[in-house]
Amino acid sequence: MSVGFEDLLAASRRIADCVHVTPVMTSTLLDELTGCRLSFKCENLQRTGAFKVRGAHNAVLSLSSQARQNGVATHSSGNHAAALALAARHIGVPAFIAMPDNATSVKLAAVRAYGGNVSLCKPTLAAREEALAELCERTGAAVIPPYDHPHVIAGQGTWALEMSRQLALPPEIILAPVGGGGLLAGSAVAARALWPGALVIGAEPSGADDARRSLISGERQLQTSPDTLADGLRTALGECNFPLIRDHVDDILTADDASIIDSMRLLWTRMKLVVEPSAAVVLAVVLTYPTVFSGRRVAAVLSGGNVDIDRLPWR
Amino acid sequence: MSVGFEDLLAASRRIADCVHVTPVMTSTLLDELTGCRLSFKCENLQRTGAFKVRGAHNAVLSLSSQARQNGVATHSSGNHAAALALAARHIGVPAFIAMPDNATSVKLAAVRAYGGNVSLCKPTLAAREEALAELCERTGAAVIPPYDHPHVIAGQGTWALEMSRQLALPPEIILAPVGGGGLLAGSAVAARALWPGALVIGAEPSGADDARRSLISGERQLQTSPDTLADGLRTALGECNFPLIRDHVDDILTADDASIIDSMRLLWTRMKLVVEPSAAVVLAVVLTYPTVFSGRRVAAVLSGGNVDIDRLPWR
Repeated sequence: MSVGFEDLLAASRRIADCVHVTPVMTSTLLDELTGCRLSFKCENLQRTGAFKVRGAHNAVLSLSSQARQNGVATHSSGNHAAALALAARHIGVPAFIAMPDNATSVKLAAVRAYGGNVSLCKPTLAAREEALAELCERTGAAVIPPYDHPHVIAGQGTWALEMSRQLALPPEIILAPVGGGGLLAGSAVAARALWPGALVIGAEPSGADDARRSLISGERQLQTSPDTLADGLRTALGECNFPLIRDHVDDILTADDASIIDSMRLLWTRMKLVVEPSAAVVLAVVLTYPTVFSGRRVAAVLSGGNVDIDRLPWR
Repeated sequence: MSVGFEDLLAASRRIADCVHVTPVMTSTLLDELTGCRLSFKCENLQRTGAFKVRGAHNAVLSLSSQARQNGVATHSSGNHAAALALAARHIGVPAFIAMPDNATSVKLAAVRAYGGNVSLCKPTLAAREEALAELCERTGAAVIPPYDHPHVIAGQGTWALEMSRQLALPPEIILAPVGGGGLLAGSAVAARALWPGALVIGAEPSGADDARRSLISGERQLQTSPDTLADGLRTALGECNFPLIRDHVDDILTADDASIIDSMRLLWTRMKLVVEPSAAVVLAVVLTYPTVFSGRRVAAVLSGGNVDIDRLPWR
C-alpha cells in the first residue's frame, strides 16, 4: 500500500478541523546570511508543537469504529506520542504510549497533559517495539506507528498543500528533516504534484545518517548507535517510507550537531521562534551546503518546537 | 498636538511597505490556564523583533526632506534604536543613537547591524537626554524620540488596525505593555474607534509603576529608580502620552518580576514564541488578576522578542 497525492488530499480534508494552518515566515537577515530565499512552514507553532498531529489525526480518523474501540497505541520519543494522545482524545478513546526513558521531560509532560497513558522503556528500537506489543496485548488497542504507515505519511505531507496556498511564488527546493521518514516521504509525494521540477531534499543529522546511506545505496540501511542531540531524528528509516523516499527524493544532506545548535540559535534570535534541534537541521543543511541552495527559493519545514528550556544545548 | 484615529489611519498607509503584517496567535493551553480567550498580536515577529518599527517609520517618513537631510537621532534602551536605524536606512540617511550602557548585548548588536551609529551613556533619563542633545548639536540630526511624540504614538497604534482585520470576533479587553506609553497610547486611540465598549488596560511591571500611579492620581508621576528585568519598560511615561492614556485607558495593572518570568516561560514553551520580559508582562497581568479577564476575549500585544538567550532569567 503506497501513498499518492490523492491520499494527501483526502488526509487534508479529514484533519482540517483538527490542525492549525500554521504561518509561513521569512527573514531578511537569514536570507542575507544564507544567500537564498527561505520560507519556513512553522510547524513548531502547530498544535502540540509539532507536525506530528497531522499524521496522527489522519491515521486515527481513518480507523473503523471497530478498530478504534479499544483505544490506540504507539511508541515514540515524544512528538508523535503527544499527537496521538490528542487525536485519541478527539475521538474519545484512550492512548497507550511506550516512550524511551531518555525522552525529554517536556515531551513526557506534554503526552501526559493530553491524557496519554505512558509506559517507559529502554531507548532502543527493540525495547520500544517490545513494550508496544505488550501494551497492545493487554489493551487490544490499535497500533498507530510514528512514521511507518501510509496514513501517517499522507497526513505528514499536508503541510505542503497549505504552503502551496501561502506562497506567492513556487519554491525551487523543498527541504524537510528525516528521521523515520514520515515527514520527508509525505513532503516528497506532495512536492511532486504541487511543484513539479522542484528539488526535494532531506536534512539529516550526520550522527544518524541511515536515510542518506539508504538513498545512496538504493537499499534501506540500519540505523546503528545514532549520536545526535536531534532527539526526534534518531529513529530508523521506515519500511513504507524508504521506497517513497528512494523514488521521490533527490538528495539527503547531513549537518553535524555544532551546526544544528548554531542554526537553532539563529532561529531563536533572528526569527524569535522556539524550535527543537530536529527542526533546526534544515537550516543547518542550508548553512553546510551553501552552493546547493544559493539564489534559490527554498520551502523548509520547521518540524517542531518541543525543547526543554532549562537544558539548552548552549548552556 | 494630540493623536486621533485619522492619524493612525494615515500612519498605517504610510508604513505599509515597511512593516510586516504580524500573525495573531492563540493557545488552547493558555486559554485553559487563564480562563479567558487570549489572542496575541505577535509583534515579536515584527521586523527588528519589536513593534517599534511602526512608530519609527511613521515618524521618519513624516519628516520633510529638509528636516531629514542630516539624519535622525534618538536615545533608546534598544528596540526603538534598532527601529530608527532601519527606518533611517530606508530613507537613506544616518541614524545617531544614544544607548544606555546597560542595554542588552543583543539589542546593541542589532542597532549596529542595521547601520546605527551608537554612543553609549549612563542609564538615567538625564544622561540619555544629555547624550542625545550632544549628538544633535554635532550632527544636525532630527530627533525622533522613542515614545513622546505624536507620530511615534500614531505608528505604534497601527497593530490594532491590522488585528481588527485578523480577528473573527471583536475583543472585550485590549491589553498592551506600558513603559514610556507610546504603544499604550496608540493602542487606546485605536481601540476607542475600532472596538468601542472594549476595556483598554495597560500592563506594567510593579517595579516601574509610574504609569499606574499617574493614572490613579490624574497627574504624571515620576519614574524613580525603576527595578524590573523588563528592560523596555523602565522608561518614564511621556508628556504627550499621559493625556491620551488618562483619557482613553481604563486601568493599568501591574505584575512582579517573578510573574513576568513565569509568563515568559509559558510563552516560550507553550506557544514556541521567543518574547522578551517587557512583552511577557501582558500575560503576567492576566495571571495576576484572573477575575478581571475571566471569560473575556482579550487582544494582547506581544511587544518584542529581543532577549539575550545566553542570559535567560531562569538560568
